[in-house]
Amino acid sequence: MNGKKTKVDKQPTIRRLPMYLRILRGLADKGNEFVSSSQLADVMNIEPILVRKDLVLTGIVGTPRIGYHISDLIRSIEDFLGWREPLATFLVGAGHLGTAILGYRDIKNFGHKIVAAFDKDPAKIGTSIHGIQVFDIKTIPDLLKKFGVRLAILAVPPEEAQEVADFIVQSGIQGIWNFSSVSLVVPKGVATHKEDLIAGLAVLSVKMARRI
Amino acid sequence: MNGKKTKVDKQPTIRRLPMYLRILRGLADKGNEFVSSSQLADVMNIEPILVRKDLVLTGIVGTPRIGYHISDLIRSIEDFLGWREPLATFLVGAGHLGTAILGYRDIKNFGHKIVAAFDKDPAKIGTSIHGIQVFDIKTIPDLLKKFGVRLAILAVPPEEAQEVADFIVQSGIQGIWNFSSVSLVVPKGVATHKEDLIAGLAVLSVKMARRI
Repeated sequence: MNGKKTKVDKQPTIRRLPMYLRILRGLADKGNEFVSSSQLADVMNIEPILVRKDLVLTGIVGTPRIGYHISDLIRSIEDFLGWREPLATFLVGAGHLGTAILGYRDIKNFGHKIVAAFDKDPAKIGTSIHGIQVFDIKTIPDLLKKFGVRLAILAVPPEEAQEVADFIVQSGIQGIWNFSSVSLVVPKGVATHKEDLIAGLAVLSVKMARRI
Repeated sequence: MNGKKTKVDKQPTIRRLPMYLRILRGLADKGNEFVSSSQLADVMNIEPILVRKDLVLTGIVGTPRIGYHISDLIRSIEDFLGWREPLATFLVGAGHLGTAILGYRDIKNFGHKIVAAFDKDPAKIGTSIHGIQVFDIKTIPDLLKKFGVRLAILAVPPEEAQEVADFIVQSGIQGIWNFSSVSLVVPKGVATHKEDLIAGLAVLSVKMARRI
């Protein structure tokens, strides 16, 4: 029971952590050394008490009247997320969505580096997309060991998603960022996160109806 | 103060509503008439009390020992989100991401119908992608009136995003689902939702570190 409840309570906080990182890096780039929870709350458009609650999850507490030391706070968030060193990551499925993800510059600023892409289409294998080489999907087990990869971004069509997921998990993938729009069944110990775009569309719909 | 706080508290609920819809439609398709909050909680992997809190936002209350009438609940969620009749929607930017979005089948199951795509690339204008015609971006003001469109999905490169947003807002767009990875400045009264994929990557990172 407790495990479940914690999971739910923490997700909104965790989803906000990258936004804190963006803001803090921007402040640091401008030469700032300290930031208060009220400043962060203003930019995030949330309450200062929520900022303090969010950040304490990463193990950091601000100093009254001084706030947070920006570089300490950045390190604390990066450590909590395991984003200090870029994690080698695979992109599986080099169609339109996969190509868009390969061109998405933020991934490398947030703890991950896509080191190889995979597809089953012979026309794509051997090409480079945004500077990243596309390999035959069958070579995943070998290249996974070579690159020390644990995480894969899955961008294959929905009807292939489970089969490909089974294959990459069997090859040693421990986490799947799932863009395939189907819910995957994976063994215990493998983490997945399904990117459900419709959740964002719901938020926008409610904003448009002026309900939030 | 209250406005802000409400906004923050409600977002996680609103983000879950499409998932309830998916589950409820699946149950209805299998011939079920009623569902309990515990059943929904099991599938959603959250607490039953949270299910009841989520659903009461749409104005529906379950009956003890019976639960919710599924078709009433579907209607209540759809009404709350304004998704009873598909809203005519534009897709602006028909690159790889735009093409992936045009092929994303869920959009039409969740209150929206993409009626036209727009690009500035002459090679794309006049073509069809996933059955949707691509028009010159300059024709947005005319077609917007013709189709009665209020919402646009923005999938242009980051460096063009603000300029294109200014143009479509001036043309009469009232809501922007923003995939451009930059924060847009829009006039009061225009709703935007920025799709921040990195939020999902943060959730996955924490799951992989077994922290949730």
